[in-house]
Amino acid sequence: MEHSTFKKWSAEFAGTFWLVFGGCGSAVLAAAFPQLGIGFLGVSLAFGLTVLTGAYAFGPISGGHFNPAVSVGLVIGGRFRASELAGYVISQVLGAIAAAGVLYVIATGKAGADVGGFATNGFGEHSPGKFNMTAALVTEIVLTAIFLMVILGSTAKRAAAGFGGMAIGLCLTLIHLVSIPVTNTSVNPARSTGVALFGPGYAMSELWLFWVAPIIGAILGALIYNVLLKED
Amino acid sequence: MEHSTFKKWSAEFAGTFWLVFGGCGSAVLAAAFPQLGIGFLGVSLAFGLTVLTGAYAFGPISGGHFNPAVSVGLVIGGRFRASELAGYVISQVLGAIAAAGVLYVIATGKAGADVGGFATNGFGEHSPGKFNMTAALVTEIVLTAIFLMVILGSTAKRAAAGFGGMAIGLCLTLIHLVSIPVTNTSVNPARSTGVALFGPGYAMSELWLFWVAPIIGAILGALIYNVLLKED
Amino acid sequence: MEHSTFKKWSAEFAGTFWLVFGGCGSAVLAAAFPQLGIGFLGVSLAFGLTVLTGAYAFGPISGGHFNPAVSVGLVIGGRFRASELAGYVISQVLGAIAAAGVLYVIATGKAGADVGGFATNGFGEHSPGKFNMTAALVTEIVLTAIFLMVILGSTAKRAAAGFGGMAIGLCLTLIHLVSIPVTNTSVNPARSTGVALFGPGYAMSELWLFWVAPIIGAILGALIYNVLLKED
Amino acid sequence: MEHSTFKKWSAEFAGTFWLVFGGCGSAVLAAAFPQLGIGFLGVSLAFGLTVLTGAYAFGPISGGHFNPAVSVGLVIGGRFRASELAGYVISQVLGAIAAAGVLYVIATGKAGADVGGFATNGFGEHSPGKFNMTAALVTEIVLTAIFLMVILGSTAKRAAAGFGGMAIGLCLTLIHLVSIPVTNTSVNPARSTGVALFGPGYAMSELWLFWVAPIIGAILGALIYNVLLKED
Repeated sequence: MEHSTFKKWSAEFAGTFWLVFGGCGSAVLAAAFPQLGIGFLGVSLAFGLTVLTGAYAFGPISGGHFNPAVSVGLVIGGRFRASELAGYVISQVLGAIAAAGVLYVIATGKAGADVGGFATNGFGEHSPGKFNMTAALVTEIVLTAIFLMVILGSTAKRAAAGFGGMAIGLCLTLIHLVSIPVTNTSVNPARSTGVALFGPGYAMSELWLFWVAPIIGAILGALIYNVLLKED
Repeated sequence: MEHSTFKKWSAEFAGTFWLVFGGCGSAVLAAAFPQLGIGFLGVSLAFGLTVLTGAYAFGPISGGHFNPAVSVGLVIGGRFRASELAGYVISQVLGAIAAAGVLYVIATGKAGADVGGFATNGFGEHSPGKFNMTAALVTEIVLTAIFLMVILGSTAKRAAAGFGGMAIGLCLTLIHLVSIPVTNTSVNPARSTGVALFGPGYAMSELWLFWVAPIIGAILGALIYNVLLKED
Repeated sequence: MEHSTFKKWSAEFAGTFWLVFGGCGSAVLAAAFPQLGIGFLGVSLAFGLTVLTGAYAFGPISGGHFNPAVSVGLVIGGRFRASELAGYVISQVLGAIAAAGVLYVIATGKAGADVGGFATNGFGEHSPGKFNMTAALVTEIVLTAIFLMVILGSTAKRAAAGFGGMAIGLCLTLIHLVSIPVTNTSVNPARSTGVALFGPGYAMSELWLFWVAPIIGAILGALIYNVLLKED
Repeated sequence: MEHSTFKKWSAEFAGTFWLVFGGCGSAVLAAAFPQLGIGFLGVSLAFGLTVLTGAYAFGPISGGHFNPAVSVGLVIGGRFRASELAGYVISQVLGAIAAAGVLYVIATGKAGADVGGFATNGFGEHSPGKFNMTAALVTEIVLTAIFLMVILGSTAKRAAAGFGGMAIGLCLTLIHLVSIPVTNTSVNPARSTGVALFGPGYAMSELWLFWVAPIIGAILGALIYNVLLKED
C-alpha cells in the first residue's frame, strides 16, 4: 500500500464521519427540539452541508465520495477504478460507524435520554410518513440515480470549475427535502449502516433495502448519464 | 437529427424531470408533515436547488432551460435558435409528465394516501391564499419577466463566469418565496402541465394561465433586458 | 446623457424593483401564511437573494447598488463618482415605488385583503418587537456600517473574484436575521420609501430614520474600512 | 509594530464583532419571536453567514480567523505564525466584547426587556437540552476538530480557489445545526467570552469549558489533518 492510498482512505473515513455526525446528529439532537427545532428543513440542510464542506476540504484528496453507492456509480461512470472500491467502501462504513458511536455518546448524555429512531432509515411501519416498501424502493432508486447524474455532470470537463462541490452538496439537501418523509432518506448505505448499529432493532432488519436500492440507483444513474447525456 | 441534438433533449428531459420531482415532490411529500414539515420555505429552496443542480450538471449539455417559457424568452433574447424550440419544449413537457407520474406512484404508496392538490397551480378558489385571476396573472408575468432578466444578465459575457447557475437557481427559490401563496408558483408551463395531469380536475381547466402568463412574462423580460439593459 | 448612463439607471431601477418586490413581497404575502408560512427566516433569505441575483445579473451594468445608502457609502469609499449619485438614487427610489405599487395590486387581489403593515419600517409602537428609537438607530447604523465594510472588502482587488455578489447578498440575509424584530430591517432608504407610500400612515412619519440612520451607517462603514482595513 | 499588523488586528476585531453581533444577535433578538421566529435553523444560518461574509470581506487582510481556537489550530497546522497569536486573540476577544455590548444596548431597548440567557454557552442545567458536561466536552472537541480540518482542507493549495470562505462559513452553520441543543454551540472562545460578560452569572463560571474544549479540538483537528490527510 502506498502512502497516498492511506490518505485517501482517511479522507473517506473523515468525510463519511462528518456526513453521519453532522447529518444524523442534527436529526437526533435538533430536529424536534421544542419550539425552536430545525425540522426536516434543517436536517436537509445539514446533510447537504456535510457533503459540500467535505467536498471542498477532503475532495482534493480522495475525490470526496463518502458513500458506497457513489463509489460504485463512479466505477460504472468510468471515473473511479474498481480496484480501489473495496478500500473506499470499508473506510466509508468505518467512518459512519465511528460517527454513530460518538453521536450515541452525546445523545445519551442527559437525564432521561431517548434516542428514538436514532435517524435510522426504514419503510412501512418505520417510514416517517408510513410509506410502503415499493414507495421506499422507487424513492431511493430514483433519487440516487439523479444524485449520480448530478455528480457526473457537475464534475465533467465542460462543467464550471470549482462549483461541483456546491452543486453536489446542495443536491443532497434537495434529496432530503423530498424524501425524509418516505424513508428518512438514505441514498447512502454507509450512513444507513452506521446508525442502524446503534438504533432500534428493526433498523438492521430493513438495512438491506438501503444497500440494494441506492446501489441500483447509482448504477442506473451512471448508465443513463453515460449513454444519454455524456458528450463524446 | 444529429447525435448531439438527442443529448440536448435528454438533458432537458432530465432537468425538467428533476425540477418537477424535486420541487413538487417536496411540496407533496414534505411541506405539511406534522411538526417537522418544511413549509413554503423548504419547497422554495427545493425548487431553486433543482435548477441550481441541474444547471451545473446538465447546463453544459443543453443550456439548462428546463422550462418552455425560458426557452421562448431565450429565443427573444437572441441566445437560442427558434428552430430548436419545439424539440426543447416537447422534451421539457415529457420530463415533467414522467416526474409527476413517478411522484404519484410514491405519494400513493401508503394506506389512506391523499395527494391533495398534488402541487398543481391555480387561482381564485384554487390559489393557496385565494388570490384572484388578476393577481395571478400579474404575479406570474412579473416574476417570469424578472427571471428572464436574471438569466440573461447572469449569463452575459461580462457576468462572473460560473456563477450563473447559482444565481438562476436561487432566483427560482426567491420567486417561490414570494408567490406560492398566490398561484402555488408556476413561471414554468411544463411544471404546471406535469402535475395537472395527475392532480384534481380543476388543475387542467386553469392550466391555460400557466402557459400564457409565463410566456408573456418571459417575452417581456427578454425585451426589457435587450432594450434597456444589455451592453452593446 | 450618454446611452450607457441610461442603462445604469435602468439596472438600478430593475435591481431595486426586485429588492422591494421580492423582499417585501415575501414578507407581505408569505411570511405569516397559516401553518406553512416562511417566517422571518424566509423573508431574510428573500431579501438577500434579491441582491445576490441582482448583483450577478445587473451588477456588471451599474455596479449593483440598489440602495441609496450603499451609493453614498461607495462615494465615501472612493468606488463611485459623486456626480453619478443623484441619478442612481432617483432610479433606486423610483424602482422601489414601482415595486411597491405592483405588490399592492397583488396583495389586494383577494376578498377581504388586509395588507397590514405592508412591510414598512418603524420603531417604538411600530417596531415588530416594540424596540425604541435608540435601539432602532443603533441597529440600522451598525448594520449598514458592516454592510458597507462587507461590500468594500468583498469587492476589493485582493478579494476572491466573482464571490462578491454571493457574500453581499447573503450579508443582507444575515442583517435581516438579526434585525427584523427591531425595525423590520431597512438599511436601505429606497426600500423604506417604496412601501411607506402604500402602507399605514405612520410609516411616512417615521421614514426619516430610515434615510438618516442607513446613510450615517454607510458613511461610517466606508470610513472605517478605508482608514482601518484597506490595504495600501 | 508595522502598519499592516494593525490592519490585521482591525480585521480580526471587525470579523469577530460581526460573528458575535450577527450570530448572537439573531439568537437574542429573533430566534424565539412569536410565530415568525427564526429558531435554531435561522441562528445556525446567521452564525455561518457571519463567517462567510467576513471571510470574503476581511479574509484577504487577516486570513479571517475570528476565533482564538482557529488561530491556535492554524499555528499547529503550520499556516499561521505563533508570534502573531497573542495579537490576534486579543483583537478577537475585544471585538466579541464590543459586539456583545452593542447587542446588550439594543436588546434592552424596549419596555420589559429580558435578555434571557443572552446567547451564552453552558452545559448541564444551562445546556438548552440539559446535556451534561461530558456531552458538552465531546461535542465541542469533535466539532472544533472537524472545523479545523475543513478550514485546512478547503484552503489548501489543491483546493478549489475562492470557495474556502463559502465552505468554512457553511461549516459553521452545520456545526450549529447539530450542537445548539447541547451547548448553545461555541467552538469559539471569543464568542463565548463576549456574551458571558453581559449574560447571566453562571455563564462566567462555565466559560472555562468553552476555552478548553475548542482549543483542544482545534489542536486535534490540525494534527489529524497534517498527519493523516495532508498531501506532501
